[in-house]
Amino acid sequence: MKAAFWYGRKDIRVVETDEPTPKSTEVKIAVKWCGICGSDLHEYISGPILIPTSPHPLTGAKAPVIMGHEFSGEVVEVGSKVRKFAAGDRVTADTKYYCHTCYHCMRSDFELCENMAFMGLASGNGAFADYICVPEELVYDLPDQVTYEQGAMVEPLAIGIHAVRRGFFREGDTACVVGAGPIGLLTIQALNAAGARRIFAIEIADNRARLASKFGARIVDPRADPRREIFDLTDGVGVDLSFECVGKQQSLKTCLEVVKKGGTVVVSGIFEEHPSLDFTDLVVSEKKIMGSTDGDFPAGISLIATNRVNVDALITSRIELSNIIDAFKQLATSKDSVKILVHPNT
Amino acid sequence: MKAAFWYGRKDIRVVETDEPTPKSTEVKIAVKWCGICGSDLHEYISGPILIPTSPHPLTGAKAPVIMGHEFSGEVVEVGSKVRKFAAGDRVTADTKYYCHTCYHCMRSDFELCENMAFMGLASGNGAFADYICVPEELVYDLPDQVTYEQGAMVEPLAIGIHAVRRGFFREGDTACVVGAGPIGLLTIQALNAAGARRIFAIEIADNRARLASKFGARIVDPRADPRREIFDLTDGVGVDLSFECVGKQQSLKTCLEVVKKGGTVVVSGIFEEHPSLDFTDLVVSEKKIMGSTDGDFPAGISLIATNRVNVDALITSRIELSNIIDAFKQLATSKDSVKILVHPNT
Repeated sequence: MKAAFWYGRKDIRVVETDEPTPKSTEVKIAVKWCGICGSDLHEYISGPILIPTSPHPLTGAKAPVIMGHEFSGEVVEVGSKVRKFAAGDRVTADTKYYCHTCYHCMRSDFELCENMAFMGLASGNGAFADYICVPEELVYDLPDQVTYEQGAMVEPLAIGIHAVRRGFFREGDTACVVGAGPIGLLTIQALNAAGARRIFAIEIADNRARLASKFGARIVDPRADPRREIFDLTDGVGVDLSFECVGKQQSLKTCLEVVKKGGTVVVSGIFEEHPSLDFTDLVVSEKKIMGSTDGDFPAGISLIATNRVNVDALITSRIELSNIIDAFKQLATSKDSVKILVHPNT
Repeated sequence: MKAAFWYGRKDIRVVETDEPTPKSTEVKIAVKWCGICGSDLHEYISGPILIPTSPHPLTGAKAPVIMGHEFSGEVVEVGSKVRKFAAGDRVTADTKYYCHTCYHCMRSDFELCENMAFMGLASGNGAFADYICVPEELVYDLPDQVTYEQGAMVEPLAIGIHAVRRGFFREGDTACVVGAGPIGLLTIQALNAAGARRIFAIEIADNRARLASKFGARIVDPRADPRREIFDLTDGVGVDLSFECVGKQQSLKTCLEVVKKGGTVVVSGIFEEHPSLDFTDLVVSEKKIMGSTDGDFPAGISLIATNRVNVDALITSRIELSNIIDAFKQLATSKDSVKILVHPNT
């Protein structure tokens, strides 16, 4: 089969490789669609970040690795010990491999696994390929009304939902989302689904701001004075929560500034540098900062299945695997695209 | 009466001033003891930080201001509307003046008041003086078994207790306190009172490390590799919570490094610069950072009254008001002192 491998920074290659064979506890899935994630782009532009260059302690994987983890597909084969899935099932999958032996795994806090390996980066398999084999415990059924395209959007939506939960958001709260890329746009929709009173979105790129607006957010231009604008529109109080979905110094700073005293900043962005922040403001105003990286898959599947979110609007193009390198180049230089879905060539 | 005024950086003067007269809702207190706080020292070394140089929106106060807010004393007179206190009462007081009209005050979140004025900094009164007049709502009775010296330690203890509560500490948790000054040492004792399993203290100064050790903490030298030492002693997991009680780049960095995945950093330190931090670690490890500045006074008084904390051990000297300038100079150049209590000269 053909698969897209990360060989190095700015060096992704589509090459012929062996079709994977499922282990006894694994499910073999024929990939239908797989989205290009912001973390894939980070690896392309300035990796290796999460891609191991020496064997990963849990999976043994190291570069070159097959990429791709935001995917949907059809089960074509199952290992001898698999009980919950059979050929023909329509599925998506969580992206985190757990060790089941560390302190946190022993306490069922799998999301904190000390040896976690991210699929498509450190797992040795990936979904920019015709087939992927995945442990049964990571696989989720897609309801009939969820399309395969939507199935490939479950993972980033699950991340957005988790960020909202992680901030202990409550119905009626106000929020500001900084950065309206895929995670920002899905966080906005998760906030709507959770009963947000008012949502602000700070974004420059026209198409992304337009989508944020379509989902009910009020657009704030970061080049003006976002703190002042948001305080003017919240009776001088600030928002209950802000969400950092960019991974930059300035967006983190803005997140802390626009949140009310006692409010919460949820950080989902991945930073290439160590940003500085006004911690005296954090202390004197008793603000909180929560890191968020996990995904809530059942919630994501349900919100799509019941039409409480619109993931289709984020899909700006659908390409074949043979064109993936051009897609990475395009994402690296322009914010015109939001989510690009990749289909295997077979 | 004599009082110590902040006139400017490195310029504190003990001068003659009018004895204050209580308003109808105020209590007039003859000061017994008043501690020199870390924030007083910050103002001395590099202020104005919280001292207003133009009239404060709530109190109208501006430099020069009387300093001092960690105090105890005896009620000598009460305003016409005061109901809970009478001459002869032994008392201490909270240090935060609230506006009662902002968004947060209207919701009884007084600790988040948008117009808050700290006593002895922005309130126009202070307890480095013979007398101080304080709104009745801020005053707390001291039980008979709490000495006046101990009464002057209630405020910093209340801050330490609040930090522990703010981190959602649970009995049996492990903790690391970075910086064993007064707030750090009282946080350690609050952690003990709350049932900590194991406490680490990162501190260089001998006398402070000795006190931390006396209170049951294991001392870790920051000049070695504190992360490694603490991970070795916690089965490779890290501590459940860490407490930043210094206000420096390095101590904040250490706090994030020594806490387990999913753990909490509580920040009490006041920073003169904006520290930088590895926010990708925060995100990928789902750590949290909580700002903490408020104090829980009833809890502090109770822990002293029931001998569950030892505040007396922190008092390294007792001086008269006329010697306060030398005391500031000493604190600015050496960590040999922990808490200096000041007595009015009368």
